[in-house]
Amino acid sequence: VGFPDRLAACVAERQSQLVLGLDPDPARLWPAAYEQATSTGDQLDGPAERAARAVRAHCGLVIDAAAAECVAVKLQAACFERLGAAGWAAFTDTAALARAAGLLVIADAKRGDIDVSAAAYAEAFLGETSTPYGPVRGLDADALTVNPLLGADSLAPFITTARARSAGLFVLVRTSNPGAADLQDRRLRDGGSVSEALACLVHRAGEGAAGRSGLTDIGAVVGATAPEHIERLRGLMPASIFLLPGIGVQGGRVDQLAAAWAPGRAAALVAASRAIAFAYERHGGDPAAAAAAEAARLREMAWTLTG
Amino acid sequence: VGFPDRLAACVAERQSQLVLGLDPDPARLWPAAYEQATSTGDQLDGPAERAARAVRAHCGLVIDAAAAECVAVKLQAACFERLGAAGWAAFTDTAALARAAGLLVIADAKRGDIDVSAAAYAEAFLGETSTPYGPVRGLDADALTVNPLLGADSLAPFITTARARSAGLFVLVRTSNPGAADLQDRRLRDGGSVSEALACLVHRAGEGAAGRSGLTDIGAVVGATAPEHIERLRGLMPASIFLLPGIGVQGGRVDQLAAAWAPGRAAALVAASRAIAFAYERHGGDPAAAAAAEAARLREMAWTLTG
Repeated sequence: VGFPDRLAACVAERQSQLVLGLDPDPARLWPAAYEQATSTGDQLDGPAERAARAVRAHCGLVIDAAAAECVAVKLQAACFERLGAAGWAAFTDTAALARAAGLLVIADAKRGDIDVSAAAYAEAFLGETSTPYGPVRGLDADALTVNPLLGADSLAPFITTARARSAGLFVLVRTSNPGAADLQDRRLRDGGSVSEALACLVHRAGEGAAGRSGLTDIGAVVGATAPEHIERLRGLMPASIFLLPGIGVQGGRVDQLAAAWAPGRAAALVAASRAIAFAYERHGGDPAAAAAAEAARLREMAWTLTG
Repeated sequence: VGFPDRLAACVAERQSQLVLGLDPDPARLWPAAYEQATSTGDQLDGPAERAARAVRAHCGLVIDAAAAECVAVKLQAACFERLGAAGWAAFTDTAALARAAGLLVIADAKRGDIDVSAAAYAEAFLGETSTPYGPVRGLDADALTVNPLLGADSLAPFITTARARSAGLFVLVRTSNPGAADLQDRRLRDGGSVSEALACLVHRAGEGAAGRSGLTDIGAVVGATAPEHIERLRGLMPASIFLLPGIGVQGGRVDQLAAAWAPGRAAALVAASRAIAFAYERHGGDPAAAAAAEAARLREMAWTLTG
């Protein structure tokens, strides 16, 4: 079963379109994560290994608290990479914890490169690498975020690997940061904006690939902070799944995003990271209880809106 | 000393503007690398560890063969990441081998993200990460390739970290693949192309930051396969160092790139990967000797051209 149909089944079953973002900062984890990390593992380990252990513990705790309200996790690759090899091991382990909790895994790595390099990234996140010693399995994510600046031929190796593994892609189309306007909102001489040109590229890449859900495996990242773009982009990408980051801390509001769900309830996912993990800093209480409550609130808000 | 002046000193001393690209495919390494990998390490290791050992051995052998003709290595992040934690350890080790051979280290990771995620990537490649267990040092590269699709504010955290560590950036402006035309060559309504808008962004980011060499720490990736763009882009970025990939296998020719060096001999670097590592497949002979000869030929061609 392809990614869109797996996702649609998960959305229906869990009555959720919420994605739990995990972007762990080793200097700011749940207190219980530091305790877990100290009580396990080798005390002779260096800072990278100890920090990676705490990061993994934190991710496990946040997943335990919020998984029931969510359909997927979105793992921010940068936050694991900065801890080197130990961080990459924590990345792999966190993906496994999420899968064990019944969540789909979206690797938010925003990769983009050409030719054999793009193919190598696809192997790292979605596929496996052939070696004389046997295949090396990658992160095995259900979906990967990719950057399309290098053009359609740079996406092709990602698409090939994603389809071979029944995975999906989310292509950056209009991001959630203020600076997105610098390039993505620029108008093209032939009409439309850079984002709209990217939307057309995404739509073409997904044509003919829709599953039973009517949704294609080539989705789009569209920032929740720019609701004025969503209706137009939905028109250009009628069958793509939208990944909408920026809810909460970045200022996006679920109730302004309704157009994203025009094709159906699984047609868009809202992602929230710090809004969930650090709900206890705003609302008080236990980190896990506050995370569960905030995840429940966001899930309910999106589900009601799209009913 | 900032990256541009370190590079300029290295260019003058080695009479070279050649960058050794390393994009190791574990299924296609030098025969001696497999032998080294088999004769060392734990035979109980899994495929990832064994492949990573072979990759590291290969990179070490290619560096040994070609370093004397080069000023830097360009390490393709994807090729290490696909081997997971073991691959990341090989990445770090390869950077150290290159430094020991007197080469600057360019991490070709093409990262781009916003806000705290961009800062985390900058920590991973150029800086260090604060943790309760002490700082975790990143790859410690001299320069990093970055993707500017997300706009100026997405580059800011990379610039901050790069400057704090006397490192440099190479921003993707016009890549070497055919698909670069899909987006980068599109004309904007206000005039110029997307690549030219990126060039202006690069120029502004570097303004006021030129070192004694007259070159700034914010460079540009400009594909060697599109020489028709180089003169115009040089005009828009008069003080940026150009990184010119695509020599050799991708079809780029050094003798068509002269405009890149208008500001001086350190103003542009040519990168070649498979053209050097796999010279023996085209020209015969020992892999190391063929790599050294091809690197010498490319170094000489660029140096003569820019004299």
